[in-house]
Amino acid sequence: MIIVGELINSSRKAIAAAIEAQDVETIQKVARDELTAGANYIDVNAGVFVGKEADYLKWLVKIVQEAVDAPCCIDSPDPKCVEQALAVHKGTAMVNSISLEKERYNALLPVVAGTDLKVVALCMSDDGMPETTEARLKIADKLINNLTQHNVPLDNIYVDALVQPIATSDSFGIEFLDAIQAIMNNYPGVHSICGLSNISYGLPNRKFMNQLFAVMGIAKGLDGLIINPLDKAMMASIITAETLAGRDNFCVNYLEAYRSDAFVW
Amino acid sequence: MIIVGELINSSRKAIAAAIEAQDVETIQKVARDELTAGANYIDVNAGVFVGKEADYLKWLVKIVQEAVDAPCCIDSPDPKCVEQALAVHKGTAMVNSISLEKERYNALLPVVAGTDLKVVALCMSDDGMPETTEARLKIADKLINNLTQHNVPLDNIYVDALVQPIATSDSFGIEFLDAIQAIMNNYPGVHSICGLSNISYGLPNRKFMNQLFAVMGIAKGLDGLIINPLDKAMMASIITAETLAGRDNFCVNYLEAYRSDAFVW
Repeated sequence: MIIVGELINSSRKAIAAAIEAQDVETIQKVARDELTAGANYIDVNAGVFVGKEADYLKWLVKIVQEAVDAPCCIDSPDPKCVEQALAVHKGTAMVNSISLEKERYNALLPVVAGTDLKVVALCMSDDGMPETTEARLKIADKLINNLTQHNVPLDNIYVDALVQPIATSDSFGIEFLDAIQAIMNNYPGVHSICGLSNISYGLPNRKFMNQLFAVMGIAKGLDGLIINPLDKAMMASIITAETLAGRDNFCVNYLEAYRSDAFVW
Repeated sequence: MIIVGELINSSRKAIAAAIEAQDVETIQKVARDELTAGANYIDVNAGVFVGKEADYLKWLVKIVQEAVDAPCCIDSPDPKCVEQALAVHKGTAMVNSISLEKERYNALLPVVAGTDLKVVALCMSDDGMPETTEARLKIADKLINNLTQHNVPLDNIYVDALVQPIATSDSFGIEFLDAIQAIMNNYPGVHSICGLSNISYGLPNRKFMNQLFAVMGIAKGLDGLIINPLDKAMMASIITAETLAGRDNFCVNYLEAYRSDAFVW
C-alpha cells in the first residue's frame, strides 16, 4: 500500500495561512508527522493561490524535502506548475495528475513521457466525470495505453478511478469499487490510488464511512490511498484490511502495529 | 443482508447451562434481544449434548418461536436432529448445513429437496476443508447444481464458502473473498453466508478484524452473515458497508441507523 499524506494542501486554512506567511516550521512539522505516521509520499498543493501557485509549490517542495527524506506528490491541475515544482524536486516524485482532459493531457504527457516519475492517471475526460464502471474503464484503458506507449512503465502508473458521493447515487460506491477490480485485473502490475472523502460527502459520520470505503477498496485490489496518515483509526483499518487481503506475510505488520499503541482500534 | 443471530449456541457456556437447566426465560430473552437488534433468523444449536441433541434442539425451536415471531436457523451437522427440529418448527426455517460430505449430503438432500426451506450449502467435502478459491468453487458448483436439480431454488441457497484463519495462511482471507465474488457472479440469484470468527483465530483484537472482514465480504457480494447481532460496532459496520455497496436506497438505512443511537460508530 502506497500512502500519500494529504495534509499539506492549501485548501486547508491553516496550511494556506502557513504558505502565505512562508512559515517554514509549520509546514515542515506536518511533513515530519506524516512521514512518521507512515506516509510514503508527501502531497504538496498550493492550488488556491492563483497566479502564485508555481512559486508556492516550488517553495513547498524545497522546504518539505529539507525536513524529510521522502518524495513529494506534486498536486496541481496546472502542468506548468507541475513542471516547475519537478525542477526543484530531489528523487522520484509522484505527479497528481494527468487525465484525459485534452489540455491537461497534452501539456503533461511530454513532462512524464520516458521519465521514471510516478504518475497518477485520473479517470476524467472532457466529457465530465465518469459515473459507471464502464465509463471509468474506457478512460483508464486510454490513459494506461497512452502512458505505456510513451514509456511510462505500468508499475509507475497509479489509476485514480475518481470517487463520487454515495449520497448523489446509490451505485457510486460499487461502480468505483468494480472499476478498481477490473483495472487491477486487466493490467497486472498497474496501481490504483484515490482520495476517499468524496464518498461520504453530505452524510454524517464521514470519517467512519471513509474508513470502511478504504477497506472495501482494499478488498477489490486498491493499493494506494491519498489520506491523512495522522488519522489513527484509518491507519489501523488499512493495516488490518491489508492483512486480511493477503498482503502481510505472517501477519507481521498487523501484530507490530497492534503492539505499537500508535493506532486506534 | 440476511442476519442470522448466532448467540443461542451450546458451545457458549451460559447457553449450555440454560439448555441443561431448561431455563426458558434465559433462552427467550436472548432470542428477543437478537430479533430486536436486527436478526432475521435465530440460530439454534445444541451440538455439545451428544445423545440429547435432538430433544434439546426441538425444545430450543419451540421456546424460541414462542418468544419471537421469527424463523430459526437449525444448526446441526446431524441430519436426524435437523429433521426432528424441522418437524416442530413453524414457518420456513433455514437449515445449517448441507455439505458435500457424503454421509451428511445423502441424509440431508431428501430432507430439503422440493421444500421451500432455506439451505446453507457449506463448502466442505470428504476431502477436507478447501483452501483455494478454486477448491471452494468446485464444491459450491456441485452443491448448487445438485440442490437446484432437486428443486431447491437458487434463491433459497446460501453458500457458506468456509472462512479459515488468516494466521494459518496469508492467502486464506483473499481466497475466501474471491470465492464469494465468483459464486455470486456465476449464479445470479444465489446467496452467500458465513460466520466470521475463524478469520481472526489466534490473533489479537479479533472483534475489529472480524468486523473489517465482514465489510470486505460485502464489497465482494456477501449477503448473509452469522453473527452476534448485539455487537453494535459490527452492526454499524454492516449497515455502512451495505450503503457503500449500493444496497441502501438514498442511504435511508444508514441515516436511520445513525440517528437511532442504537449503534457504535
